[in-house]
Amino acid sequence: MTHDDLAGFQADPKTLDREGHLLLDYYFECHGDPNEAAAHLCSEQSTAQWRRIGVDEDFRPVFAAKVLELEILGEQPDFSYPVALKPRGTVRSCRVRIAHPHRNFGPRIPNLLSAVCGEGPFFCPGIGLIKLLDIHFPASFLAHFEGPKFGVAGLREQLQVFDRPIFFGVIKPNIGLPPEPFCEAGYASWLGGLDIAKDDEMLADAEWSTLAERTRLLGAARRRAEQETGVPKIYLANITDEVDRLLALHDVAVDNGANALLVNAMPVGLSAVRMLRRHTRVPLVGHFPFIAAFSRLAHFGVHSRVITKLQRLAGFDVVIMPGFGSRMMTGDDEVRQNVAACLDEMGGIKPCLPVPGGSDWAGTLEGVYRRLDTVDFGFVPGRGVFGHPMGPRGGAASIRQAWDAIASGIPLTEHAETQPELRSAIDAFGPLPGTPPQQSPR
Amino acid sequence: MTHDDLAGFQADPKTLDREGHLLLDYYFECHGDPNEAAAHLCSEQSTAQWRRIGVDEDFRPVFAAKVLELEILGEQPDFSYPVALKPRGTVRSCRVRIAHPHRNFGPRIPNLLSAVCGEGPFFCPGIGLIKLLDIHFPASFLAHFEGPKFGVAGLREQLQVFDRPIFFGVIKPNIGLPPEPFCEAGYASWLGGLDIAKDDEMLADAEWSTLAERTRLLGAARRRAEQETGVPKIYLANITDEVDRLLALHDVAVDNGANALLVNAMPVGLSAVRMLRRHTRVPLVGHFPFIAAFSRLAHFGVHSRVITKLQRLAGFDVVIMPGFGSRMMTGDDEVRQNVAACLDEMGGIKPCLPVPGGSDWAGTLEGVYRRLDTVDFGFVPGRGVFGHPMGPRGGAASIRQAWDAIASGIPLTEHAETQPELRSAIDAFGPLPGTPPQQSPR
Repeated sequence: MTHDDLAGFQADPKTLDREGHLLLDYYFECHGDPNEAAAHLCSEQSTAQWRRIGVDEDFRPVFAAKVLELEILGEQPDFSYPVALKPRGTVRSCRVRIAHPHRNFGPRIPNLLSAVCGEGPFFCPGIGLIKLLDIHFPASFLAHFEGPKFGVAGLREQLQVFDRPIFFGVIKPNIGLPPEPFCEAGYASWLGGLDIAKDDEMLADAEWSTLAERTRLLGAARRRAEQETGVPKIYLANITDEVDRLLALHDVAVDNGANALLVNAMPVGLSAVRMLRRHTRVPLVGHFPFIAAFSRLAHFGVHSRVITKLQRLAGFDVVIMPGFGSRMMTGDDEVRQNVAACLDEMGGIKPCLPVPGGSDWAGTLEGVYRRLDTVDFGFVPGRGVFGHPMGPRGGAASIRQAWDAIASGIPLTEHAETQPELRSAIDAFGPLPGTPPQQSPR
Repeated sequence: MTHDDLAGFQADPKTLDREGHLLLDYYFECHGDPNEAAAHLCSEQSTAQWRRIGVDEDFRPVFAAKVLELEILGEQPDFSYPVALKPRGTVRSCRVRIAHPHRNFGPRIPNLLSAVCGEGPFFCPGIGLIKLLDIHFPASFLAHFEGPKFGVAGLREQLQVFDRPIFFGVIKPNIGLPPEPFCEAGYASWLGGLDIAKDDEMLADAEWSTLAERTRLLGAARRRAEQETGVPKIYLANITDEVDRLLALHDVAVDNGANALLVNAMPVGLSAVRMLRRHTRVPLVGHFPFIAAFSRLAHFGVHSRVITKLQRLAGFDVVIMPGFGSRMMTGDDEVRQNVAACLDEMGGIKPCLPVPGGSDWAGTLEGVYRRLDTVDFGFVPGRGVFGHPMGPRGGAASIRQAWDAIASGIPLTEHAETQPELRSAIDAFGPLPGTPPQQSPR
C-alpha cells in the first residue's frame, strides 16, 4: 500500500461518526509494518478494491473500516503458535481498535460475523495470528435488535425469586435414562429446592427420550412440585435441533408444560436463536458447545465475550458459560468478562442471567458468589445434585442449605452440623475449596 | 476412573456395530494416563454418569462413545500452546479413534456438533488441547440427509460445461459499488467468458444495494449475456442474512433471475442451510467466513474438512474454500483434503464442486489444476478479473485464454503472444508462479 492508500483506512476517534460504526478490538501478530497490516485488516474486512479501473472514485470515506488506535505491544522471533506457510522475519504483536461502518451490512448477525470474524480478518496479508477481542455497538445499531424477551427481571418474576442466585440442576444420567425415571429425578430435585431442573445440552429429541414424552411428563411433574412446595418451578427443556424444527418443538414443549427452553447457541446458529426469540412464549437459555474451539487460546480466534454479547443480542434470557476453576480451563478474568457482557448496560437491550458452570456442588457456591459479588447469576450443578448420596432431593437441599449459610454469614461446615444433606455433600464431593477474597463491586 | 470404568468406554473395532456409530478422529494433548484421558473423552461426550445412585444399571453398552484405537504420538514438556489454568507435568500427544453411537442424538447437525465438538471434548479432564480431525458417517446415518440437490453433475448440466473447470468471478469493488455499475461489471465478465459472476461474501441485502434491485438488474443482464454469447450463464447472488429471511430472499432472488445462491455457511448456520436446501430451486454455494477461527492451528479446534463434509451433508452444491498458496495460509494437504471431502464417495450424497480460492488470476490457474489433477473444481478470481487493466471482459477472457493454453499443452507465455488479454494479465499480475509437478491421480 502507498502512503495515500494507508491514509484512506485511518480515522480520527474525535471526529468519528460514532453512531455509524461498530468498534472492534483485535489482537494480531504480523510481519512487516504494523501500520500497513492494520490498514490491510481494515481493507480486507470492507472495501479492498475501493475504485473501479479507470474511474476516478473512492469508496473508502463511506464504506471502509478504519484504524482508530494502534498499539504495538512487542516484538518476538516468531508467531506465538506456528502458522502454515508463514513468511519469515520479526513478528510484532499489536492491539488495534477499528471502526467498521455498519451500513455495509445492516443489523444482521450472519453478515456481522462474516465481516468481523470472516475471510477479511483471518486471511489478511502479513497477519498470521489474530483474535477478535471485543465488539462495541452504538445505540442506533442495538435499536434494531429485540434482545432478551424476559431478561433477569422477567425470570425472577416468573420464579418469584428476587434476592438470591437462581438454582439450576442438570438432570443426570444425561444420556440413556428413559423419560419416567428422568422425570422422577427432576421432580425430586424441585422438592429439594431447585428452581430449575434442566435437560443436559446433549439430550434433545432422541428416539429413546422424545421431547414430546419428556416434556409431557416433566411439565406435569413441575406443576405437581409447584403445588406441593407452593413456589414456582421451571422445567428447562432442550429443543436444540434442526432450525426448521425449532418453532414446532417450542410449541410442543411449551404446550406440554416446559416453561423455559434450552438451545445450544453456536450449533444451532445465533440467527436461528433470534428467529426463535420472535416466537417464544418462555425464557430462552443458551448453552456453550463449540465456543471453546475458537475462544480458548489467548492469541487466536474470537474472544468468548464477543459471543456472549451476541447471544444476548440474539435474545437469550440466560447464558450458560464455562465457570471458575481449573476444570473449565477458563481464567477468572474471562469468566468475569462474560458475566459483565450479560449484565452491563447495552442500550435498550435487557440484561440476561449469566450462569458460569462446571462441576459445581454445594461447596463451590460461595466461591462463585464471592468472585462475582452479585446475586444475579445462576448456579448449575449436575452430579452435585443428581449424584448426591441422598438422591436429587437431598442434592438440591444441599445447595439451598449452602446458600442459607452464605446469606447468614455462617461457615458451611458449621451449618452442615445441623443439615444432613449439606454434610453428606461435603463428605461425598469435598473437601471444600478455598474461598477467594471478595472482589470490589463491579 | 477405575479399571472397570475404563473398560466401559472401550470397544473392539472388529465387533463394532459399524452402522450404529460415527467414527471420530481426534488429536489431543493430555496430562496423566492417555488411556484414562481417552476414556474421559468418550464419557464426557456421551454418558459421563452412566447409572443412577443406588440403581444397578449401566448405560454404557448402548449409549457410551468408545475408544477404538489410541496411538501415543510423543511426549513433550508442555502443551503446544499455553492453556489457562493447566496442571503441571509431562504432556503426551495422542491420536484416538472413537465410535460414537448416533442414536444419542439422531441425524441432526446441531446435535451432532454439540456432541462431537461441544462441551464434552473441549472440557475434558486431563486434555488441555484437542482437535477434531475427521468424521466418518455410516450409510444408515447419511440416508437421512438430502445432500446437494444439483451437485457437480447438476451444475455442469445447468451450464452445459462438462470438460473443464467452472470459471467464477467475484464482482469488484465488492462494497460500495451501486447496483447499476455493479451489473455492468458482471455483464462484461460474462461476455468475456466467465460462467458465474458472483456477489462478494460480504455483499448481501444492503440498503445501498438491495438484493431485490441487484438481482433484478443482474438477472436481466445474465439473460442478455446468454443471448449474446449463446451459452448459459449464472448470476450467483448472496442471500446471507438472518435465518428467518432466507426463504423469502431465495424467492426474491430466484424470481428476479439469480440462478444460484451464495450463503456463508457458519455465520448463517449449517442447519439453516439444510432448511434452505429443502426449499431451493437453484444450486447453493457455501462460502468460508469464520471457519479459519477454529481450524487454522494444527493442534486445536476442528479440522476444516469436518466442516466441508458437513457443508456437503447440509446440501451445498458448491463449497468455496481457502485455496493454495501462502496468501491463504492453508497447507496444500489441507486444500486437497477439503477437495476430497467434496468429491469422494459419501453414501448416496452427491459430490459438490470444490472451489479453492484466494487472490487468483489467469496465471494461477495451471497451478491449481496441476495440484488437483481433475477438472472438477471451480476457479474464483476477484481482482484477477475485475481489476484487469482491460476491464472485466478482458479479465474474464484472460482466464479462458489461460485454460485454452493449459488444455492445449501450450505454455502460457507463448499463448499470450497472440492473446492480448492474457498478455495484459501477466503484465499486471505477474510474474507467473512456478508450476508444481503434476500429482498422481487421486
